[in-house]
Amino acid sequence: MSNQSAEDRLIARYFAPIAKDPGALGLVDDAAVLVPPADCDLVLKTDPIVASVHFFPDDPPAAIARKALRVNLSDLAAKGARPLGFLLSLALPAEIGDAWLSAFAQGLGADAEHFACPLLGGDTDRTPGLLTVTIAALGAVPRGTMVKRSSAQPGDRVVVTGTVGDSALGVRLRKQPELAASWGVDAAGRAHLVDRYLVPQPRLAIAEIIRRFASAAMDISDGLAGDFAKLCRASGVGGDVDVTRVPLSGAARAALDRDPSAIEPILTGGDDYEILATVPAAQLGAFRAETAARGVIVSEIGAIAAGPGEGRLVGRDGQPLKFARPSFSHF
Amino acid sequence: MSNQSAEDRLIARYFAPIAKDPGALGLVDDAAVLVPPADCDLVLKTDPIVASVHFFPDDPPAAIARKALRVNLSDLAAKGARPLGFLLSLALPAEIGDAWLSAFAQGLGADAEHFACPLLGGDTDRTPGLLTVTIAALGAVPRGTMVKRSSAQPGDRVVVTGTVGDSALGVRLRKQPELAASWGVDAAGRAHLVDRYLVPQPRLAIAEIIRRFASAAMDISDGLAGDFAKLCRASGVGGDVDVTRVPLSGAARAALDRDPSAIEPILTGGDDYEILATVPAAQLGAFRAETAARGVIVSEIGAIAAGPGEGRLVGRDGQPLKFARPSFSHF
Repeated sequence: MSNQSAEDRLIARYFAPIAKDPGALGLVDDAAVLVPPADCDLVLKTDPIVASVHFFPDDPPAAIARKALRVNLSDLAAKGARPLGFLLSLALPAEIGDAWLSAFAQGLGADAEHFACPLLGGDTDRTPGLLTVTIAALGAVPRGTMVKRSSAQPGDRVVVTGTVGDSALGVRLRKQPELAASWGVDAAGRAHLVDRYLVPQPRLAIAEIIRRFASAAMDISDGLAGDFAKLCRASGVGGDVDVTRVPLSGAARAALDRDPSAIEPILTGGDDYEILATVPAAQLGAFRAETAARGVIVSEIGAIAAGPGEGRLVGRDGQPLKFARPSFSHF
Repeated sequence: MSNQSAEDRLIARYFAPIAKDPGALGLVDDAAVLVPPADCDLVLKTDPIVASVHFFPDDPPAAIARKALRVNLSDLAAKGARPLGFLLSLALPAEIGDAWLSAFAQGLGADAEHFACPLLGGDTDRTPGLLTVTIAALGAVPRGTMVKRSSAQPGDRVVVTGTVGDSALGVRLRKQPELAASWGVDAAGRAHLVDRYLVPQPRLAIAEIIRRFASAAMDISDGLAGDFAKLCRASGVGGDVDVTRVPLSGAARAALDRDPSAIEPILTGGDDYEILATVPAAQLGAFRAETAARGVIVSEIGAIAAGPGEGRLVGRDGQPLKFARPSFSHF
């Protein structure tokens, strides 16, 4: 249309086609509308990603889109929630053109469909600053059942999904490709580590199992060491994680065997997007059976102790590990 | 605590004290929880503001916070929704320090309380880019009653709240202070115009009246000319707004009398955050009485015609005005 703005055209061309939910109103209204499911609480999360901070500006646009959505879905999964939809705020530097936007929207639409989390609305602006993708995700849990960080109990077992540390090693490989040789990591191992940074795997497949079994949970975004400490602090308990039981991928194991200092990025580097949870000991067997049935590997790595105390990572020698910087922070 | 991150400390110090809603969980969990009101639809909106794009970097931090929230509340009001709460994503350049954050949080907390729209959660990051404040706001309407843009009917009257164009003149005065003299705007007039840009007034006081009376509505963020055209396009109707009836403040009127070219920023400059609505002619009297009782001035400025057509602004000579750029866009 003659007096349609550039922003309207961009939205109509790239984002309206992936906003199929009726509540998105074709992205032509001021706001989206969502009918909340009956007898549910809403679970709300926003976590933006910024170029050069959370991703490399030359990452594939589809991967940037998927990461932007997935870091939020990871939180919903850790809270035991199923996704309802999301809002997108996109700040685009001038150099972002049609090819980039087309690939970005395609990646976003594919993930929205895969995770049943529709794009409901948002905003797009040009910025003289950095490419920033801010997603606010909404999920739902049956009334009163959101899994908190603050409810771990003494005696609970500490569990973690997947493997830890891949992403932190992957980002180092992106910055210093020569590390692959000194770590003895082959091409497949390198690809695994780099991909874990590029596109996280939100554990939505077991969100409902987390909700039924976990006494407390959070997703690991700032490193296992710091995030376990946060969970214990929020719950007013102590606890030990046995570092020898922390699950590592083959590539991370290879790197650690050659370079023992890799333990620090593995445990504190962040961007894991795995679920750290506490489960009552009596229910651990059933929890593991159900998660295994959904194809998600869960490892038991420690136990919660009576508090007040602190969440510690304990090494082979039985001594707590000390890190220069236990929790990843952009500050 | 010893291993609390800088981000955690910042949140605990400045934002936890203003996040009093129980659903915010003290801002120490991964996500917020919200019990949706019974028999309501959720209304969802996100609209970020970026330094040097939507505000001046040296604006008072409390004003930046209030603008960030209010541009979203303005959309909720136009949709007939009452606010439920919001999520905040804050991207902070390195130079932002304690004094700035303290004033920002204070302004945000005051508005959250004033508009009964609590801070529920969010994220704070340092950025090498521009200061960006992204708010995602949630509101509620009784099931099925959100006021859309797309439902204006032929014969409806076109109304607008408050005055139009102040903000666009205010931003020009900020950039070119010498315009005040050529516009014949005194100190009080200048303060009025500049303040209208700095801190918008969301029309939540009449949100419920909009919901009961308006056949269609939107907030004016990109200028009356372009936004009226958008409303007509979304509704598949035409319509004329009589430019001589568009409500102007005393200061804007003074500027326009001295400088007829000011009509273009007044009608296309954006950032008004007033509500543009259509109301069935038979209900206009009751609508005006109820809005007046809430202290909000509403002006009747035009009428909707059968479509398809376009939404036009018609001048004193009965001819449609042509603008170089009818709708404000950052693109």
